[in-house]
Amino acid sequence: MGYNRPAGRHWLQIPGPTNVPDRILRAMDRPTIDHRGPEFQDLTRHILERIGAVFGTADPVVIYPSSGTGAWEAALVNTLSPGDHVLICETGHFSNLWAQLARGLGFEVEVLQGDWRRGADSVQLEARLSEDTDHAIKALCLVHNETSTGVTSDIGAAREVLDALGHPALLMVDAVSSLGCIEVRHDGWRVDVTVSGSQKGLMLPPGLGFNAISATARDANRQARQPRGYWDWQSILATNAQGMFPYTPATNLLFALDTALDMLNEEGLENVFARHRRHARATRAAVDAWGLALVARRPEEYSSAVTAVSMPEGFDADAFRAHVLERFDMSLGSGLAKLQGRVFRIGHLGDFNDLALMGTLAGVELGLAEFGIASKTSGISAAMQTLKQS
Amino acid sequence: MGYNRPAGRHWLQIPGPTNVPDRILRAMDRPTIDHRGPEFQDLTRHILERIGAVFGTADPVVIYPSSGTGAWEAALVNTLSPGDHVLICETGHFSNLWAQLARGLGFEVEVLQGDWRRGADSVQLEARLSEDTDHAIKALCLVHNETSTGVTSDIGAAREVLDALGHPALLMVDAVSSLGCIEVRHDGWRVDVTVSGSQKGLMLPPGLGFNAISATARDANRQARQPRGYWDWQSILATNAQGMFPYTPATNLLFALDTALDMLNEEGLENVFARHRRHARATRAAVDAWGLALVARRPEEYSSAVTAVSMPEGFDADAFRAHVLERFDMSLGSGLAKLQGRVFRIGHLGDFNDLALMGTLAGVELGLAEFGIASKTSGISAAMQTLKQS
Amino acid sequence: MGYNRPAGRHWLQIPGPTNVPDRILRAMDRPTIDHRGPEFQDLTRHILERIGAVFGTADPVVIYPSSGTGAWEAALVNTLSPGDHVLICETGHFSNLWAQLARGLGFEVEVLQGDWRRGADSVQLEARLSEDTDHAIKALCLVHNETSTGVTSDIGAAREVLDALGHPALLMVDAVSSLGCIEVRHDGWRVDVTVSGSQKGLMLPPGLGFNAISATARDANRQARQPRGYWDWQSILATNAQGMFPYTPATNLLFALDTALDMLNEEGLENVFARHRRHARATRAAVDAWGLALVARRPEEYSSAVTAVSMPEGFDADAFRAHVLERFDMSLGSGLAKLQGRVFRIGHLGDFNDLALMGTLAGVELGLAEFGIASKTSGISAAMQTLKQS
Amino acid sequence: MGYNRPAGRHWLQIPGPTNVPDRILRAMDRPTIDHRGPEFQDLTRHILERIGAVFGTADPVVIYPSSGTGAWEAALVNTLSPGDHVLICETGHFSNLWAQLARGLGFEVEVLQGDWRRGADSVQLEARLSEDTDHAIKALCLVHNETSTGVTSDIGAAREVLDALGHPALLMVDAVSSLGCIEVRHDGWRVDVTVSGSQKGLMLPPGLGFNAISATARDANRQARQPRGYWDWQSILATNAQGMFPYTPATNLLFALDTALDMLNEEGLENVFARHRRHARATRAAVDAWGLALVARRPEEYSSAVTAVSMPEGFDADAFRAHVLERFDMSLGSGLAKLQGRVFRIGHLGDFNDLALMGTLAGVELGLAEFGIASKTSGISAAMQTLKQS
Repeated sequence: MGYNRPAGRHWLQIPGPTNVPDRILRAMDRPTIDHRGPEFQDLTRHILERIGAVFGTADPVVIYPSSGTGAWEAALVNTLSPGDHVLICETGHFSNLWAQLARGLGFEVEVLQGDWRRGADSVQLEARLSEDTDHAIKALCLVHNETSTGVTSDIGAAREVLDALGHPALLMVDAVSSLGCIEVRHDGWRVDVTVSGSQKGLMLPPGLGFNAISATARDANRQARQPRGYWDWQSILATNAQGMFPYTPATNLLFALDTALDMLNEEGLENVFARHRRHARATRAAVDAWGLALVARRPEEYSSAVTAVSMPEGFDADAFRAHVLERFDMSLGSGLAKLQGRVFRIGHLGDFNDLALMGTLAGVELGLAEFGIASKTSGISAAMQTLKQS
Repeated sequence: MGYNRPAGRHWLQIPGPTNVPDRILRAMDRPTIDHRGPEFQDLTRHILERIGAVFGTADPVVIYPSSGTGAWEAALVNTLSPGDHVLICETGHFSNLWAQLARGLGFEVEVLQGDWRRGADSVQLEARLSEDTDHAIKALCLVHNETSTGVTSDIGAAREVLDALGHPALLMVDAVSSLGCIEVRHDGWRVDVTVSGSQKGLMLPPGLGFNAISATARDANRQARQPRGYWDWQSILATNAQGMFPYTPATNLLFALDTALDMLNEEGLENVFARHRRHARATRAAVDAWGLALVARRPEEYSSAVTAVSMPEGFDADAFRAHVLERFDMSLGSGLAKLQGRVFRIGHLGDFNDLALMGTLAGVELGLAEFGIASKTSGISAAMQTLKQS
Repeated sequence: MGYNRPAGRHWLQIPGPTNVPDRILRAMDRPTIDHRGPEFQDLTRHILERIGAVFGTADPVVIYPSSGTGAWEAALVNTLSPGDHVLICETGHFSNLWAQLARGLGFEVEVLQGDWRRGADSVQLEARLSEDTDHAIKALCLVHNETSTGVTSDIGAAREVLDALGHPALLMVDAVSSLGCIEVRHDGWRVDVTVSGSQKGLMLPPGLGFNAISATARDANRQARQPRGYWDWQSILATNAQGMFPYTPATNLLFALDTALDMLNEEGLENVFARHRRHARATRAAVDAWGLALVARRPEEYSSAVTAVSMPEGFDADAFRAHVLERFDMSLGSGLAKLQGRVFRIGHLGDFNDLALMGTLAGVELGLAEFGIASKTSGISAAMQTLKQS
Repeated sequence: MGYNRPAGRHWLQIPGPTNVPDRILRAMDRPTIDHRGPEFQDLTRHILERIGAVFGTADPVVIYPSSGTGAWEAALVNTLSPGDHVLICETGHFSNLWAQLARGLGFEVEVLQGDWRRGADSVQLEARLSEDTDHAIKALCLVHNETSTGVTSDIGAAREVLDALGHPALLMVDAVSSLGCIEVRHDGWRVDVTVSGSQKGLMLPPGLGFNAISATARDANRQARQPRGYWDWQSILATNAQGMFPYTPATNLLFALDTALDMLNEEGLENVFARHRRHARATRAAVDAWGLALVARRPEEYSSAVTAVSMPEGFDADAFRAHVLERFDMSLGSGLAKLQGRVFRIGHLGDFNDLALMGTLAGVELGLAEFGIASKTSGISAAMQTLKQS
């Protein structure tokens, strides 16, 4: 094998954290300011008046110094009471982690099982909810883009099921890896709490969690008896109104967020989504050309942000990823939980362009060849063909 | 009045966030890396094996993507059960916020009232704990350095009270604004949970919270029934052992933390503490020369990190601070809660040196003169005298 | 002596390079771009259409990747022919270095001697030029702000002498340490070549040299037979017209320059000059209070950018500076050439504010005390008094 | 045509300035320091004791704040006298610019004409030098890697010609775009002055020029009568010995240079050269697959740093480059002088890796297709094949 040392940039092609643009890193590389002073108040307002658009909402969006996991917790503890019944559609590792978190918080969690290859099943959901005639189920939790499998769920369909049944469960959606990549329609789907994080389509380092909150959720909040402190919406909404936060916010990540919103607006959200679709299509063309299988089964559920690929029998995905890291200085996403060793994931989200995609796919193709996995045909040629046509 | 535009650097002399050193900002201004890859594992280990020294402990330290408020919550929910009785010594605004947070979490909170000018009173504490013969009090919470008043509490004395009575309450200490400024002796005082944050003596931007955890606290954790998810120590300790975190950590703030530990070690913690004492002495000399009064009453409780100063009758502290900000581009700390408008605070903590202190005090002195508050004598001359002698 | 480690920021109080603002450093911390592409052309034009205002001119300004010394050379080789007679007024070390450079280039250099405590003497100049009835003198070189002594020269007066005599010598002015600190009136004084550099009032790192060029100088250029290549104005002016340079320019320093022009414009040049005057006055008040002597003799020639101070007999200025560096992490300017060991210089130029000035003066005062030089009275109090009154 | 906005990083694939690594940008993003203080002296020494290795020399290397053009001038004016005869082998645009510069400086310049597709011709050189029996030719100037054509010259062969004839002409070599990419053997080839710049294989922004200087050249310098000031070696060598420079150096670019030397040493120069060879081979494989022609004729002269490609008849290279910039945010090098519009150049030098190369070639291939130039076969597949085999 030839030479390849880690010259040049590292290729961070996991499905998040994503490659943080220089402009955002440099925005973060500014002296921290007084979080109670006028400059900070302007910053807060400038963010809050623009952040909603990314969530497709006119509702307030609450920002936490936390990971996305914290934002999951926030959604639950702000709206529910001890022992409440929560229904979660299993779509993969992240739906299961959310369920596990909810159990730790003392809720009665029910999981609608899935095969990790499809999104939430409306039929299954309709069946289960229609049984719940006394409305014991207080919240329905869905992962919009299941990062572990590259499968999206149809949130609008879930909303239709709830509406058709007149079921009052709160609709909670994890948009951690869809926000800023795939359209999120908090208002359009009448989501009650949209949960997200900073390190995917928002192009920031990790460290911020988000809750977009419907009026229904705010009503629920006033009745909810789950103990809460840090995550409490009311104190945040009250101080946000004055351009402040109830505790010291993650100022430098807010500098970064402000710049990220500039960048998304400059490109235009529609263009951002189209770019992600384009790159996902090209990636799938490459996977197909290589003769490998997607984890995702249904075309209409393919993720624009991440593509999970099944390893051929007899090959270990983690050894493959280690090889690619060692040889091409590229990080790929691992198979998680029951997919460990059997799946690798290609992140093509965030601040990304055609040539970076081609470099990424070339790295996978070179890695496959060196790892002894014969490609059916050239993936990069197929990807290029797709880019040309789209 | 003469000319003064915001040329030069902003003076961030609030008691935190502190002036982040260039070296730390630049460490943070690096591309985010894969939080499941080998480089990240090395980073985690390099931090975890060194962070304990700053807390004066060989116990594990857990790091959250959160503010210090989140770390308060973590300390409580990891060790207590619903309805547990918590005793908090009132020392100022932050002890009260902790109490309020604990109430929101459903604990039975009792506050030993204070006058906001003294630290926790051992006599009062001994009296109260000795009444608690059935050990209903499960946790005693103290703020080591009360940021709102510039008053420290004697944690060692509190530990002696507990020991003398054989009282098993967990000792929880907020070291948010003392860590890295004033010696914290987690092991020496046998603290059970030391709570801290990133944006003070650690010289980082805000966004990380800390819990240093004694073996007793870890035992309590196994019995504690308070619902918890995000803050759960066990999942963090388990993944930390492999150089990872249970959820996406705030990678770039960890880059910064790693560099902060380098800097503290290069200077030497003893030197760091001595530097803070020196600057606090000089600041108090200036306050005395100006003829103004400290909020802190007892010399042995004076804070090395922040000096809270009472405004003379008839002057509004917030108007004064606004004037100093406008004229000298310096942010001073406000009086909080019941001290609002009556107190301003000078932060002299973090990455700071003699000349920066002199610039700070000159700004206060110029501001007082312009604001119409006659100084008894020259504060900066008094401060300089102190620096010369120490 | 007490403790003082290099915590906090270094104090770079030499008379240049000056403290580079974060905003400029961050502008420089951007990926280099194609110097023949459209983005670069926009950058060039954005700079060139604004840079003249800082020089007080509508004439073209040529930018070199060079130090200020290179810009001295450029002024000479573009306008003169081998063996031409050049007259230079000695004002200090930098006038002498310019003379030495001119000699190395083969010109016949005549120096009007000075005592390094006054600016160029119009009477002496008039006397000399009036003898030169056949106009053998082709260029008159003056240093606007002599950085080694803190003395300015009256360029307008020199122009008047030339005009009164009808002497056609080119007027060349070194504005390296005045530009962006003290008003430069290239057009108002009808200077033929104004020479400058990036690392003083422009607040950039060193690495750029400048020539502002009058129409007369451009005419002279067409006749000048001094060999030249790199410095040739014509190729630069020709390519600048297309937003480019004849060779690879120092792109990242141009990013920085573009931001520096933003900052100067935001503050307003008049305000910038007033700020420098204010700080120089306060510095001189401190020097006077300390009982030390200025190098500069005439108040009307005091520099707003730098103050050179004579050490008392028996004390070595370099040992003093080393002490201040060691103890307070502040760099002061050294005495140069014949002033070595006898003079130290306080730079108060560039991106600077009142509190930074006070910190600087406090450092000098503390250093003097520790070094065993008794101050007559408090310099910082005197400086503060000046700031209050102005 | 599909969507493609400038998301992601710009692709700077001109043959310099190259993509500056983050680590170098961040090194440059540090406050400027006192260029006469001890920290700076350490920096200078740390650079000077390591820079020679990159030039393959134990001779001193002089560093200028300048572009590479300035370093060309420095080589000439330090060693020659007015009217000296200089022989330059024409290899392309840059050899011609050097000749033009030398003429402007008043030397008698003779150009051995070339066809811009081959390196310096030893036979032609031998013929010309053997005629020069009275050694009128004082200097022979060669461009090691002709950036405009992607052709290298055999410097060792030129040295052998000089030796065989006993001709004493100084051997001067432009290594601007070879240094740090292709091995430079200043000592091995007994080059007298090796000229270089910062913005190619050294991975810095532009702004530094270099002269590596043999003992013979230093001897010549003592006799040379060409007027000189800024470029004078003696003052630089004398002050360098004390860790300083005769004028304010470009401090922040020196920070960057220090880091660049760290990086080159960490990778190992042999590995750096091998990496460049590998990428050049793969690029040529792509060009061949596309059915396009190289400018370079002889395989043994192919450049490892840049590949110049002839456009097919009927297509304008600049329009093609504009298209690639617009569509894929990639800057390619233009055809220079007589190659304008007929050639484009692919830079594959500096901080670069396999996947970045593949992205680059994909961008060219996509651009060709969109521009209507049919590829014979897939260039990226051919390049990948080459990478796999090497």
